[in-house]
Amino acid sequence: MSQPIIEPRLLKGFRDILPDKMRTRQHMIRTVESVLQTFGFGPLETPALEYADILLGKLGDEGEKLLYRFKDHGDRDVAMRYDFTVPLARVVAQYPDLLKPFKRYQVGPVWRADNTQRGRYREFYQLDMDIVGSDSNIADAEILVTMQESLLALGIHDFEIRINHRQLLSDIVQRVGLNTYQKQQFYSGLDKWDKIGGVNGVTSFWQQNGLDHEQIGQLLTALESIEDHPVTAAIELATSLGLKPQHYRLDPTIVRGLDYYTGIVFETTLVNAPEFGSVFSGGRYDDLVGRFAKQPVPAVGASIGVDRLATALEELGVLASKNTITQVFVTIFNDELLDVSLRTASALRQAGIATEVSYQTGNLGKQLKIAAARQVDWVIIIGPDEAREGQLTVRNLQTGQEYTSSLPELIRRLAA
Amino acid sequence: MSQPIIEPRLLKGFRDILPDKMRTRQHMIRTVESVLQTFGFGPLETPALEYADILLGKLGDEGEKLLYRFKDHGDRDVAMRYDFTVPLARVVAQYPDLLKPFKRYQVGPVWRADNTQRGRYREFYQLDMDIVGSDSNIADAEILVTMQESLLALGIHDFEIRINHRQLLSDIVQRVGLNTYQKQQFYSGLDKWDKIGGVNGVTSFWQQNGLDHEQIGQLLTALESIEDHPVTAAIELATSLGLKPQHYRLDPTIVRGLDYYTGIVFETTLVNAPEFGSVFSGGRYDDLVGRFAKQPVPAVGASIGVDRLATALEELGVLASKNTITQVFVTIFNDELLDVSLRTASALRQAGIATEVSYQTGNLGKQLKIAAARQVDWVIIIGPDEAREGQLTVRNLQTGQEYTSSLPELIRRLAA
Repeated sequence: MSQPIIEPRLLKGFRDILPDKMRTRQHMIRTVESVLQTFGFGPLETPALEYADILLGKLGDEGEKLLYRFKDHGDRDVAMRYDFTVPLARVVAQYPDLLKPFKRYQVGPVWRADNTQRGRYREFYQLDMDIVGSDSNIADAEILVTMQESLLALGIHDFEIRINHRQLLSDIVQRVGLNTYQKQQFYSGLDKWDKIGGVNGVTSFWQQNGLDHEQIGQLLTALESIEDHPVTAAIELATSLGLKPQHYRLDPTIVRGLDYYTGIVFETTLVNAPEFGSVFSGGRYDDLVGRFAKQPVPAVGASIGVDRLATALEELGVLASKNTITQVFVTIFNDELLDVSLRTASALRQAGIATEVSYQTGNLGKQLKIAAARQVDWVIIIGPDEAREGQLTVRNLQTGQEYTSSLPELIRRLAA
Repeated sequence: MSQPIIEPRLLKGFRDILPDKMRTRQHMIRTVESVLQTFGFGPLETPALEYADILLGKLGDEGEKLLYRFKDHGDRDVAMRYDFTVPLARVVAQYPDLLKPFKRYQVGPVWRADNTQRGRYREFYQLDMDIVGSDSNIADAEILVTMQESLLALGIHDFEIRINHRQLLSDIVQRVGLNTYQKQQFYSGLDKWDKIGGVNGVTSFWQQNGLDHEQIGQLLTALESIEDHPVTAAIELATSLGLKPQHYRLDPTIVRGLDYYTGIVFETTLVNAPEFGSVFSGGRYDDLVGRFAKQPVPAVGASIGVDRLATALEELGVLASKNTITQVFVTIFNDELLDVSLRTASALRQAGIATEVSYQTGNLGKQLKIAAARQVDWVIIIGPDEAREGQLTVRNLQTGQEYTSSLPELIRRLAA
């Protein structure tokens, strides 16, 4: 080609997910999807691009810088979605005939032009599940149980859903008499509780950020002496639905950054991998649809950070990645034996056995090397003797053991 | 909320896919994916955004207008992917250690700022499968068989893979002595063959576009008198791999618009829905990776237009859409019976039965209406009598029939 070579490269904050990692992710997503189905959630897809004014507003000034925003060919002000919650609110307002409660999930990439220095990506996967159109505690309870069942289905048993309620925090704010700035600092300190070393760290954070000694004392007392926690009713219902005591804890330090939460809020940490932070979080947001419709519609939901959870599962050894899921590699001894070899591969595939064939004939050593590199379990060799006798030589690539088998016999064994 | 209401709306050429349609799509994609697995293809994911120079070039000047292209926050010239083939070529060049042959598939949205008047969308789904790193006819044959098996697995039996070879066409061009402009018109006419009324239509198209009477006569003779079609070897191998004669046809009018094809090319039409055009097409492209690497890498692949095929399957009645896949709706008779009702729902879900619970208690008539609107099969009613006796009333919403059952009995019946 006469054109100069273009350097193959990726944008900062973007990445390719090669098949071994993709399989882990797919397995994870499908597992959660099957749990969601048993709870009656259906899949939804919304566009990657929306009018910018649809997406703006919830983010605040700081957040607007995170939007990938540009003018399209028709000079429209457009932006790439940065979450699934705002598009969901738009959908609910745009199709008033949607059956309520509307239980949907959405999975896919979202985009934020964030600082990549903290190991964050600018394109990342989310899996969101929400119940729209009910303000019942039963809906809150269902989200909690859906989270538990999703994690259990993934093989994770040591996790803690930490639950709080926005009402609890705003009651405290009112009782102590914090102004708007102080309230923000109060929330911000709570949110950092674990990271900055508990009570002592939070106390000095609040001191440095405009709260006085008396206020801090009152806040800490209020946090320690919670009696009727507003999530008690939801947790009782969740318990009827199967939530187990070892999988949740009331935690007054859970705030959730986003402004739009109005009720229950929760985050989930992996007991054996707390460094990943919250892998599954959400809460109730009863006002968001009101941005797009006269009638506000109550909603509650949770979101999985797919990349973070997948990485955590890999590190915990819950999910392993493999070069291939191909079970059998069919070699081709020579051109005369091409037909029988291809027919053998075809029969194995028809039986649902993942099979690859060699794309070259002859040089068996080279073909075996390719099969070994692909981490295939079994190699089939059909030489002139085997062909004459209607048999196959089957070699186990792990052990090196070989045996002779007929094709139907092999299919019975591998399909079992 | 004090802010003005933002009108919920979509960009032209973009759409939401609501759960009923999404289920059809998911089913379609998963079915093809399981075929691809038996052939040894693994999943790949690449970013939505790439450096513009990576994506440009293949498209030509006309095509560049189709790119969603903008400057990002770091003033980088970026664009949204418009296909999966160029990113695949980049991936192959960027990771030289990838095992070859590299068999991957990718599914997801691509974006083209195309004219929407012809019913085209600007965001649409593709499912691509490619084999990179082998120039063998066996790889060509595998792609053909993968296509056949994918369509059969989807329940489509009346389809025709129409096969041609670029070499055949360029040989004819050379023999007749067409210049570059005439060659383009020759290809363009062939591509329109069916649409403009066969030989007569094509003849007048060529006449109007700079080909003379003699050239046209030579072209038609050449097309009619093909003897050794260059795809014969690949088709013979595909036959060994299971390709059936009723599912393919040699067709010298198949061109494929894109410049980068170098060998076999094919398109697939649904015999009972030809108006959808080609739903599954591709070919061999041995030079594309060369844009990103010194060493060109041979490749062959095919692509499903997911939206088009899904719509065709819906119209042919092969796939039906439904509001829900929920089987059971558990009503809540009153607050006292909340616990037993939720426990019943939980037990059904644990048994893998898709179950929803009512988010309101009391007013059974209203709850039954919600269940009916959701097209659920079964409704469970647990009143005081049932609760005392440890029984459930089970109502079939289609027939209106009711019976009494214990929970384990119901689970046995529904899980069967």
